[in-house]
Amino acid sequence: MFEQIFANVRQKSPLIHNITNYVTVNDCANMLLACGGSPIMADDPDDAVEITAICGGLNINMGTLNQRTIPAMMAAGKRACELGHPVVLDPVGAGASKLRTRTAFQLLEAIKFTVVRGNISEIKTLAAGSGTTRGVDADVADQVTEENLDQAVAFAKEYAKRSGAVIAITGAVDIVADSCRAFCIRNGHPMMSAVTGTGCQLSALTAAFVAANPETPLEAVAAAVCAMGLCGEIAYRRLGEMDGNSSYRNYIIDAMYRLTPAELEKGARYEVR
Amino acid sequence: MFEQIFANVRQKSPLIHNITNYVTVNDCANMLLACGGSPIMADDPDDAVEITAICGGLNINMGTLNQRTIPAMMAAGKRACELGHPVVLDPVGAGASKLRTRTAFQLLEAIKFTVVRGNISEIKTLAAGSGTTRGVDADVADQVTEENLDQAVAFAKEYAKRSGAVIAITGAVDIVADSCRAFCIRNGHPMMSAVTGTGCQLSALTAAFVAANPETPLEAVAAAVCAMGLCGEIAYRRLGEMDGNSSYRNYIIDAMYRLTPAELEKGARYEVR
Amino acid sequence: MFEQIFANVRQKSPLIHNITNYVTVNDCANMLLACGGSPIMADDPDDAVEITAICGGLNINMGTLNQRTIPAMMAAGKRACELGHPVVLDPVGAGASKLRTRTAFQLLEAIKFTVVRGNISEIKTLAAGSGTTRGVDADVADQVTEENLDQAVAFAKEYAKRSGAVIAITGAVDIVADSCRAFCIRNGHPMMSAVTGTGCQLSALTAAFVAANPETPLEAVAAAVCAMGLCGEIAYRRLGEMDGNSSYRNYIIDAMYRLTPAELEKGARYEVR
Repeated sequence: MFEQIFANVRQKSPLIHNITNYVTVNDCANMLLACGGSPIMADDPDDAVEITAICGGLNINMGTLNQRTIPAMMAAGKRACELGHPVVLDPVGAGASKLRTRTAFQLLEAIKFTVVRGNISEIKTLAAGSGTTRGVDADVADQVTEENLDQAVAFAKEYAKRSGAVIAITGAVDIVADSCRAFCIRNGHPMMSAVTGTGCQLSALTAAFVAANPETPLEAVAAAVCAMGLCGEIAYRRLGEMDGNSSYRNYIIDAMYRLTPAELEKGARYEVR
Repeated sequence: MFEQIFANVRQKSPLIHNITNYVTVNDCANMLLACGGSPIMADDPDDAVEITAICGGLNINMGTLNQRTIPAMMAAGKRACELGHPVVLDPVGAGASKLRTRTAFQLLEAIKFTVVRGNISEIKTLAAGSGTTRGVDADVADQVTEENLDQAVAFAKEYAKRSGAVIAITGAVDIVADSCRAFCIRNGHPMMSAVTGTGCQLSALTAAFVAANPETPLEAVAAAVCAMGLCGEIAYRRLGEMDGNSSYRNYIIDAMYRLTPAELEKGARYEVR
Repeated sequence: MFEQIFANVRQKSPLIHNITNYVTVNDCANMLLACGGSPIMADDPDDAVEITAICGGLNINMGTLNQRTIPAMMAAGKRACELGHPVVLDPVGAGASKLRTRTAFQLLEAIKFTVVRGNISEIKTLAAGSGTTRGVDADVADQVTEENLDQAVAFAKEYAKRSGAVIAITGAVDIVADSCRAFCIRNGHPMMSAVTGTGCQLSALTAAFVAANPETPLEAVAAAVCAMGLCGEIAYRRLGEMDGNSSYRNYIIDAMYRLTPAELEKGARYEVR
């Protein structure tokens, strides 16, 4: 299944509009190119609405939101909805400040998101206002482990039901859920958290996967999460004795560029609950 | 000829003011350092006019233009003209949205550009309002091939005449033209389009080459285009079996850092029509 | 001593709020992760004050300052002071434009900085209005050499006394001074100036080192400067015959990721004057 999904991305080459942070934007663009998609960035309100109309999907990332980009997110998100484009929300730092939390809620109210992808603290904040986000990382107390996986799955399904979006919670174990089914994904490597923006890259990737597979959003998101994790594994095995997080960053993107649909099918490690 | 032009860049180390997008700005800075130039970025209207005055050239890139940076582009461009500095325009996405198209026209009206560098769709938009820009990439229908090269050359010369700028249209074959002569350049590698911002880097590079060679802008732009393409070829040959577009990005900049004027002279592949 | 200081960074993993330029922000984030810290970026005035409150230190970098980020710097800096957080100023381009010079003075008046780190031209501008900044690089006439080192040390101590901050002047020889003592540091490699943002990365690193070692700010800054320079040396030795400034950029961050506290202790080359 993931083989076909990834093949669709490579074949359709979806153009993805990103309103994203300036910290990791270059990596998001190169990751989109690596997977076979095409990136465009536009975050002025006057520009974003028109640009989103020529794209196949929209990725909204709150990483460095500001008074100029928030209206752009809002307007482009509404326009993308009208056009039936998939829209991904990456609520970076929701729970860490009032502006971030409030903006996430406003976006969720105005826009029908296809996917919401974040760490467990961010998603808990969105679902209940109860997450404790440590900056842009998940709080240790919140983390998904094998012990609390069933609870986390139930939580994700419930929030998916309420929000109408596919919910992707990434961490040591990743959960990708709609209201009925959840993929529990065990790809990835802990060292990915030593590279800034692997989450942001995943959100951009997710937008490309969903745009190329509009009929199967749940599976498309799960495939994107597996692909990102698998690239983290491949890149980790490639590390030489002098390589650190900066080379690792490059190797992850390189791995996506080289990854074939068949390799994704074979390397994806997940169960459906 | 290109040997001397590149030697001038390395020897004069021009300081280039860039008002550019936040997607590829880091690569533009490292590319400028790689060629022997020096980068500075300033995009607040209050800052840009003064900063441009201490520089040797200005590179205006519309990639993520916004309501704050557009006045900065305008004011810095006018100041650079007054001072006789070369100014390069990279009209990213002209034709893809009204804001981008309108801004490009306003800049062209207010500022005497030394060079306009874009893909064929963007340049067609500027010349006639008839290009069909697919996001930030050229439309397939627009692409320059061996079959339509003569027409494209005539088009470039005509627009160069009208605009007074050297016109650089980059694609499978690159065209660098003034009103009388056109360099048709066959350096480069298709994989360069899998790296975000190779066009942006080339525009920054072009500003450095023109700033260091004010008497021969046409040849300076052609040399920059050949140098960028040649680095794409050198970097491609360097790719290992696990390398993808992210390592390729680094290798292109590395190649520029290592490139000698003599190697450029030898590796440049062009004809003048 | 540096061994314990660096071990504290790795062990405490300070969360650092960066209001910094969009040119080098990704490298700053990866450098913070490489040293064991954690980065967050927020530059909207509404967001920055709250974000800084959940962090352990604040790094203000003027590289691409603008009318939106200047109030954010001011407000976050004041809040960080109230909370007793260390605050680092990197006055990029002070002396190169009125906006930059004026902003630096306003920040210095309103905020009690723990550290001010810049090149000699920038620091001279802050101290006396007499530096001649060539864009974002130090003017040649200003450079610290073995010949004028005693004078530069006296200057740094005097300005440290007046400002109440630890002063870090980086160049061929680095000086880190409070009012009484100065570390003269001879780590580093000239090729570091061919990578954009090594200074910005050092400022971010400095914030992490000071946040993890609040009792010994002078030594913490000196340790950060030695660590950065040592990584520049390690990365330089790693360069292959095709590597240039882009790979060097990656190798410097990689080296920080791999560096142990014991290696820093052993590799630091300094004298106290």
